[in-house]
Amino acid sequence: MSQPLRIAVAGLGTVGAGTVQLLAKQHELLLRRCGRALEVVAVSARDRNKDRGIDVAGYAWYDNAVQMAREAEADVVVELIGGEDGPALATCQAAIAAGKHIVTANKALLARHGTALAQAAEQAGVALNFEAAVAGGVPIVKALREALAGNVVDRVYGILNGTCNYILTEMRETGRSFDDVLAEAQALGFAEADPSTDVDGIDAAHKLSLLASLAFGTELAYDAVYVQGIRGVTPIDIEFAGELGYRIKLLGSARLTERGLEQRVHPCMVDTDKPIAHVDGVYNAVIAQGDFVEDTLYEGRGAGGGPTASAVVADLVDIARGQRVPTFSVPATSLNRATLLPMDRHRGAYYIRLNVLDQPGVIADISAAFRDEAVSIESMLQRGRSPTEGVPVVLTTHTTEEAQMRRALDQIAQLSAVVEPPHMIRIEEL
Amino acid sequence: MSQPLRIAVAGLGTVGAGTVQLLAKQHELLLRRCGRALEVVAVSARDRNKDRGIDVAGYAWYDNAVQMAREAEADVVVELIGGEDGPALATCQAAIAAGKHIVTANKALLARHGTALAQAAEQAGVALNFEAAVAGGVPIVKALREALAGNVVDRVYGILNGTCNYILTEMRETGRSFDDVLAEAQALGFAEADPSTDVDGIDAAHKLSLLASLAFGTELAYDAVYVQGIRGVTPIDIEFAGELGYRIKLLGSARLTERGLEQRVHPCMVDTDKPIAHVDGVYNAVIAQGDFVEDTLYEGRGAGGGPTASAVVADLVDIARGQRVPTFSVPATSLNRATLLPMDRHRGAYYIRLNVLDQPGVIADISAAFRDEAVSIESMLQRGRSPTEGVPVVLTTHTTEEAQMRRALDQIAQLSAVVEPPHMIRIEEL
Repeated sequence: MSQPLRIAVAGLGTVGAGTVQLLAKQHELLLRRCGRALEVVAVSARDRNKDRGIDVAGYAWYDNAVQMAREAEADVVVELIGGEDGPALATCQAAIAAGKHIVTANKALLARHGTALAQAAEQAGVALNFEAAVAGGVPIVKALREALAGNVVDRVYGILNGTCNYILTEMRETGRSFDDVLAEAQALGFAEADPSTDVDGIDAAHKLSLLASLAFGTELAYDAVYVQGIRGVTPIDIEFAGELGYRIKLLGSARLTERGLEQRVHPCMVDTDKPIAHVDGVYNAVIAQGDFVEDTLYEGRGAGGGPTASAVVADLVDIARGQRVPTFSVPATSLNRATLLPMDRHRGAYYIRLNVLDQPGVIADISAAFRDEAVSIESMLQRGRSPTEGVPVVLTTHTTEEAQMRRALDQIAQLSAVVEPPHMIRIEEL
Repeated sequence: MSQPLRIAVAGLGTVGAGTVQLLAKQHELLLRRCGRALEVVAVSARDRNKDRGIDVAGYAWYDNAVQMAREAEADVVVELIGGEDGPALATCQAAIAAGKHIVTANKALLARHGTALAQAAEQAGVALNFEAAVAGGVPIVKALREALAGNVVDRVYGILNGTCNYILTEMRETGRSFDDVLAEAQALGFAEADPSTDVDGIDAAHKLSLLASLAFGTELAYDAVYVQGIRGVTPIDIEFAGELGYRIKLLGSARLTERGLEQRVHPCMVDTDKPIAHVDGVYNAVIAQGDFVEDTLYEGRGAGGGPTASAVVADLVDIARGQRVPTFSVPATSLNRATLLPMDRHRGAYYIRLNVLDQPGVIADISAAFRDEAVSIESMLQRGRSPTEGVPVVLTTHTTEEAQMRRALDQIAQLSAVVEPPHMIRIEEL
């Protein structure tokens, strides 16, 4: 029997406390599975006396996580502090300097500093594991890094934020507005008091940038992710989506082609026949497409203490068993710098909803704007008739380039009979 | 840069040829991901001159796989011969004796000999990897063995046979009979000339026994799997299932409780709201439930040269990277021998379809039979009326024990107004 793996946990929020609980409850099971014990030896948080439902008396206590990373008699530091800089970054840097492995759930930190941290960790010969940073309990990091290693992965996409998926699911099922459902989600604890990281797509963008690096062997390029959240999704668009055979989902999608690296997070119209259309509520799902394996889908709870702790412990188990793979599938010094494809170059089909006064010639003017930009209309439907009040006109287009679409919409927005800015949602080809 | 991993491939059917092709095509990628080359050095098959779309001239050729396992200058033997005994078993035994790692896609072999082979491999210090044996390209073995290692897994279930799922999907979409769709599937190459291993549930049972061992740390107990295939599924049952809000799927389900180990493969009524109800065609999907992670779902192509080769190569990548975990999640000498729960003790709800002459008292007699066995009826519907020809009567029950249900059905089958043996499909609580 080998020496125990000694673990220092920085941050005792929901995930930190869940991790400590899991390691205590499954102590014997993990011993059997790993051939050695997984022992928490030290913990760090701001307030020692806060009740977290766990007994921290048996562990060395540090008020300062950086000091713990430097000084604790531990093999691994679990970073669950959060934040893209500050103490989280300093804790990881201190752990690497002290020759300790790192396990983190911090997507914001990795999206910003992942390439540099991975290079430093690999040079120091320590692991930088982050299964919990993407899609909670769903083992998509391991899948991309190990299970699909025999494939050229050309696309990875999915539902990466449980809060947004919960809100969109509730909006669809109840017909209520975004603001209404958000307020309820906040009351229920499914959304933060400041929801912008979730609902503006930032959290999903962090995760997408990690998936892209893992899948394609490219340097992290978080700043190049096109990001649009779900605040603009309205009940009427959800209703029209249903009529057209779609559901609206916030997807993160990354693709590497000879044109370059495309990374996008925005609401999408998804065909109801596709499995991803049926991933509802707080669930996350990721689809990875490889040249030999074809489509593989991974689904589960994307957040919460239990699922996220499960992912943290999976990373600890890998370290305990001596399993080591390059942080982003290939050595961090050999990650490629991809050509970045700007969103203007995105090609796809579009759903457009206009609010239009039903006056002679308006449809001709709209059609002319699309024709001028060589955008081909696939379908059009108009609801109601009123020359004095706006009525909805919904169009779908064939595949076109984003830049052309934007120019056509700018022209349409100028028309006097078009009484509010056009609503546009991209139709996703899956 | 380390030494290449030298690979000997036994069996050059679809999967063997696919594996050789993948390793050739992704040579540079695998070198980058593993830090060493993956080199095929030897191959074995019955007929050297058969055209397989691959050039075998560069590899040492063996007519005899056992001899190759013994003598080839290889680190790993990939066993893709198939069959539960014979040359496949002898090849694996020879590889272990020669200190070579094994990668296999052979579920029949492992279902029969997995515990003994794992013990021998672990004692010899070699890997016995079998990702490709369950659900083709879907990395469920790695998920159970590694990603969910922090969880007590209490249930694992799924769609484990693509041929059956294809047939059931076609039957549902077209209303055609089992025999008709099977014949078409055989013509299209989706089903074997002798389809019994697939359609009688044997292949799914092999896979289920492997999943149970991985999930629960129990010795393989293939002989204890309750197996019923899909030959008895009729278009009328599929139609009634739809009316009742269900789809019929062939599921394999394993559960470990204090009552014992339950392993079952049979057609199930699955609520259409559940994700598994939407896994159609040749796709496989497995759901694993852990106490911390809760539900996780893994879906992809369950067969075919590309997806299966992807899984074989994932196992080779693990070996190349020095990743080693116990074959069935815990050391093979410490696998538990579970109490086996017989099918008579299964508890669940049931769908029953009777063909009944519409005569006075018949419903009373049927109801009495259920009452005598304390089976509680949830719903009943009768279609059409005819005192001289049979009409269908469909019932669903509340949860009951299989033994009670069987006794009630035996009694009902004796009634003179019941003109064919009762049709029973279990309703699955997911």
